[in-house]
Amino acid sequence: MLISDLTTPALLVERDVLDANLATMSAALPGPRLRPHVKAHKTTALARRQAAHGHEGFTCATVRECEVMAAAGLGADLLLANEVLDTRRLGALVADGARVTVAVDSPETIAAAAAGGVGEVLVDVNVGLQRCGCPPERAGELAAAARAAGLHVRGVMGYEGHLMLVPSPERAERTRDAMQVLLRAAADVGGEVVSAGGTGTYLDNIWATEIQAGSYALMDTAYARLGHPFGQALSVLGTVISVSPGHAVVDVGLKALGMDHGLPAIEGAEVRRCSDEHTTFVPAEPVRVGDRVRVLPAHVDPTVVLHERMHLVDGETVLETWPVDMRGW
Amino acid sequence: MLISDLTTPALLVERDVLDANLATMSAALPGPRLRPHVKAHKTTALARRQAAHGHEGFTCATVRECEVMAAAGLGADLLLANEVLDTRRLGALVADGARVTVAVDSPETIAAAAAGGVGEVLVDVNVGLQRCGCPPERAGELAAAARAAGLHVRGVMGYEGHLMLVPSPERAERTRDAMQVLLRAAADVGGEVVSAGGTGTYLDNIWATEIQAGSYALMDTAYARLGHPFGQALSVLGTVISVSPGHAVVDVGLKALGMDHGLPAIEGAEVRRCSDEHTTFVPAEPVRVGDRVRVLPAHVDPTVVLHERMHLVDGETVLETWPVDMRGW
Repeated sequence: MLISDLTTPALLVERDVLDANLATMSAALPGPRLRPHVKAHKTTALARRQAAHGHEGFTCATVRECEVMAAAGLGADLLLANEVLDTRRLGALVADGARVTVAVDSPETIAAAAAGGVGEVLVDVNVGLQRCGCPPERAGELAAAARAAGLHVRGVMGYEGHLMLVPSPERAERTRDAMQVLLRAAADVGGEVVSAGGTGTYLDNIWATEIQAGSYALMDTAYARLGHPFGQALSVLGTVISVSPGHAVVDVGLKALGMDHGLPAIEGAEVRRCSDEHTTFVPAEPVRVGDRVRVLPAHVDPTVVLHERMHLVDGETVLETWPVDMRGW
Repeated sequence: MLISDLTTPALLVERDVLDANLATMSAALPGPRLRPHVKAHKTTALARRQAAHGHEGFTCATVRECEVMAAAGLGADLLLANEVLDTRRLGALVADGARVTVAVDSPETIAAAAAGGVGEVLVDVNVGLQRCGCPPERAGELAAAARAAGLHVRGVMGYEGHLMLVPSPERAERTRDAMQVLLRAAADVGGEVVSAGGTGTYLDNIWATEIQAGSYALMDTAYARLGHPFGQALSVLGTVISVSPGHAVVDVGLKALGMDHGLPAIEGAEVRRCSDEHTTFVPAEPVRVGDRVRVLPAHVDPTVVLHERMHLVDGETVLETWPVDMRGW
């Protein structure tokens, strides 16, 4: 099958770039040093490729992601790095043989984990992101409460998400400070796991026992500006459907693109605006109705969830088509 | 079933508000004066409610929307108000008995309509939006080319999308000017249809024979500021999963919200930021872990496509659950 046969808009993943990204990250963070975050691609076929690079444990953001990973045989060690109240579906996965660990940061989430039969938890610590996570000084008491509720406390997590797009060398310094906070909490909590990090801090964060990076696999224009050795593997293929004297329109709109980081990019063109099913752009060289154009999303994660499938491609050839099978909740 | 039984995030539609919106619009634009645009909700169950208000013709933005509408028995008169090159699937719908009219604005899209067996077209005219649509002075020659290709030219369309959020009275004046352009093109083209308009100009546009409004059914915070008599029917139900001294977090993130119009709103709270599965907010009154919160998206259309289903609710009761069955392409 060729790219020209695809219905547009279509999510394309360059095989060479993807494989290089996976290899580069696995060389830097081999085996259990990396716990790939599946929220960035939501595709078990891609997670299976990450597993083939030696990573057995995965990070998830939703219950659905855990369910689909387990059903795909990738449930050896799933961390739901998020707080959840409705833990019944997670408990069912554990009963079926998956290993699931869930983040807790309050008495309520501890009670939910225990009631749902999850069994294993990490104490989630606020290391400066100001989102979820308990105050560092409360981590020890939450760990004690979790143990009292019959839960196995594997350690701590603390996501320094506010530092991912900070430039160097400030990023390394602030990551060190955030991780000192997490390590002090870890000493209070006990356990062997210190889970943190992301693509932005994968080299800076030398304190966590495992890094939860996800974006490195596909990348996006925001991360690309930081100079990490990962290439932009993902684009959205579109068809030029209309050409006017001053502009052209491709059939990739804001229902096919994550827009929270702003407008997408088109190589050799100025992007004017997006509407539901259109991106209006000013091409440097003339384009014709029917031409195919690759649109580069500003943010990969919310782009992927808008598509039912992604196509692994090599040049003009479609090698494989993968369902984006972890969408929804 | 009660709202408290729903897995979050969950798309809620208030029945009273929806029904009032549908009734208000159908009173203003009865029967064929309104051609409801399904892109705003992508849900055949909701389209069926619009049909019950007397509107037999519908507007679509994608081939998939046409296919699913036809399969649901709502294919009596579908307008694909967009240019498409791959028309084979549309031709198949026509062969199966649906009536499908497609927008054309170039020789290439005319050739595609003829080759795909669509049969009926509107000439799409640029009335100032600067997106798709031919220059007004070319409409007549495109109509002649379409007829020479064996197509039935039903008339023209021209979407004044750039005027939807303009305040009154400027909006009415500029709509009149845009429609004068369209009516001159219509005189060159022939046919009986002049299709235009949207929720923002549904009262201003007294020149089009039919109005393509869609947002009025569910509404969003951007349109709500204009003072139209339509209420915000749609919200995203979330669960508070974490509470910190200065803020709280609800499990409705940018994968559950269209973000191109900016941050969502939460009544009685200041919304700080959204991440993949979280909205961080500062509540006016204390909230507790486990509380349910309604998040109001800034833009409805790209919010709806992120959800598999929407729940019609009355107070705390879930009346019906509708699949969002027109997603994808």
